[in-house]
Amino acid sequence: MITLLEQALQGNIVPRPPVWIMRQAGRFLPKYRELQERYPFFTRIRTPELASQISRMPVDVLGVDAAIIFSDILVVPDALGCPVTMEAGAGPRLPHPIRTMHDVEQLVRLPAAESLGYVSDAIRLTRSELSDSVPVIGFAGAPWTILCYMVEGKGSKDWELAKRFLLEQPQAASRLLDLITDQTIDYLRMQHQAGASAVQVFDSWAAALSPSMYQTWMMPLWTRIVSSLADIPLIVYARGAHVGIDNIASLGSVAVGLDWSIEAAQARMLVPSHTLQGNLDPVMLFADHDTIRKTTIQLIHDLGVQRTIINLGHGILPTTPVDAARVFIDTVKNYT
Amino acid sequence: MITLLEQALQGNIVPRPPVWIMRQAGRFLPKYRELQERYPFFTRIRTPELASQISRMPVDVLGVDAAIIFSDILVVPDALGCPVTMEAGAGPRLPHPIRTMHDVEQLVRLPAAESLGYVSDAIRLTRSELSDSVPVIGFAGAPWTILCYMVEGKGSKDWELAKRFLLEQPQAASRLLDLITDQTIDYLRMQHQAGASAVQVFDSWAAALSPSMYQTWMMPLWTRIVSSLADIPLIVYARGAHVGIDNIASLGSVAVGLDWSIEAAQARMLVPSHTLQGNLDPVMLFADHDTIRKTTIQLIHDLGVQRTIINLGHGILPTTPVDAARVFIDTVKNYT
Repeated sequence: MITLLEQALQGNIVPRPPVWIMRQAGRFLPKYRELQERYPFFTRIRTPELASQISRMPVDVLGVDAAIIFSDILVVPDALGCPVTMEAGAGPRLPHPIRTMHDVEQLVRLPAAESLGYVSDAIRLTRSELSDSVPVIGFAGAPWTILCYMVEGKGSKDWELAKRFLLEQPQAASRLLDLITDQTIDYLRMQHQAGASAVQVFDSWAAALSPSMYQTWMMPLWTRIVSSLADIPLIVYARGAHVGIDNIASLGSVAVGLDWSIEAAQARMLVPSHTLQGNLDPVMLFADHDTIRKTTIQLIHDLGVQRTIINLGHGILPTTPVDAARVFIDTVKNYT
Repeated sequence: MITLLEQALQGNIVPRPPVWIMRQAGRFLPKYRELQERYPFFTRIRTPELASQISRMPVDVLGVDAAIIFSDILVVPDALGCPVTMEAGAGPRLPHPIRTMHDVEQLVRLPAAESLGYVSDAIRLTRSELSDSVPVIGFAGAPWTILCYMVEGKGSKDWELAKRFLLEQPQAASRLLDLITDQTIDYLRMQHQAGASAVQVFDSWAAALSPSMYQTWMMPLWTRIVSSLADIPLIVYARGAHVGIDNIASLGSVAVGLDWSIEAAQARMLVPSHTLQGNLDPVMLFADHDTIRKTTIQLIHDLGVQRTIINLGHGILPTTPVDAARVFIDTVKNYT
């Protein structure tokens, strides 16, 4: 049986759009916070039973139309030999950041099945536990976003060091981006083979680059990713990318993930024939329930029922009331 | 004698565009860092001799076409009775943030001449010391950006509390925004009367709001600011505002400050008949000098010589080499 999400991604006629929430398998769920206290972050990710349990939580609690595998984009630097630690409240740390060509040369790319096999295991287990009731989405970070963390060694407001790495050491940057891109393609294919019905690529820090730098450095890598994975349903989410969603859509047969910075109606006008996913501002889930309902219905009207996946325009905020998220999901599921 | 900056703001024919740099009176200058070690932040701002000395530094060191008064947007919350402290490396702190209608009601608006007179003094002194060789620019934060700090009490990645304040307590938010707007208009007029040839309003955190929230909440305030100050040359810099620069330009006879997220040629196409200011990505000053020269000349071509003020698209980075900033300035000054 083909699921609603897959129908929307293929462009089939559907009675209503499917709905899920970015970061739905996360901190806003009380049950997740219990596990958070018991197991370190990367233990939760690397233990298929835990990752699967967390991935299924929002299906049970909210009734979303898709599970996204519980993981983190930073498993890729780690797999390449650039270790990552995660301390509560402090965000990620990469104690050996990449700053020179020599640093890049020390990295080693192994087949994803070898270095990231635990993600396959978690996807397989999740699919089996869900009995195919809802599909599983896999994901990875885009090469630029991964480079950001690898160069800076931690989060940053403006990613100055990462941008300077492109300008000051273009050869090393290019080699690093190629390495990440190869690893990402291999990793996404592995997730698909393990049972992910679709994969989403998150360029969380796309907005740090000017349109011309993004065009020069990143669009060729996107082209490579999209053409290498032409047989896999792919959602491209380049948050705040200044090249614009029409340029993202021109990459090919991909679904375009929208952030909340664009009006949904305008997005649909700019990208009429691709599947669009998004884009309620996460903070709207703090409005009263009536406002949430009205805004969600307006969103469906603006994107249209067909070729649409309803979602937030960014990850759900950890402080979001579960009830509000349920109102959002139910409004889409009851839409006629 | 009318200065090049004023000519460009009035739309007069000029031989080349004027140039200055956002945050030019700041941390990237070695002489500023000396003063930074000797006097606390708000002492530097509140002592007209120091503020004037710092404001004039980039005129001496770089030869910019305008001085911007050394100050901070957070003098406004402070003047309203919401104190601000600034600790090196930690950013601003507002120990009594505004979270309720009761908090808003405790604020008191005094005439700017009374609560912010030290800025007048600094502007007068700076003009006198500069002997009118270059003009002085005054500035303030936009109401949304000021509200952000007053509600959060410090910097934030996504300004969640400030956004929730609009959604959860719209009456209190509206009252606070009105109060800030009134104070800001009074404050900008005072700066003009003290000798500022133009004033710039910085909406540094405009990008935190969706297009529809910005349209609903902020555009009416912008309209009020622009119409109240119709006789004063005004530069509107709404960084990353998702309503778009064409909407900003439609506010009236204002110059539009561009951030680096838009291609200059596209900006000029969208806003053909207003003065535009911007928009080199600050990180470009880390490229080699030849690249800086070429990129700057391309920027002049893209924006056009007339109705253009060359600037960066965001504040200069503290780590920028002074030589690189000088190459940028000289390229514009030598443009024929």
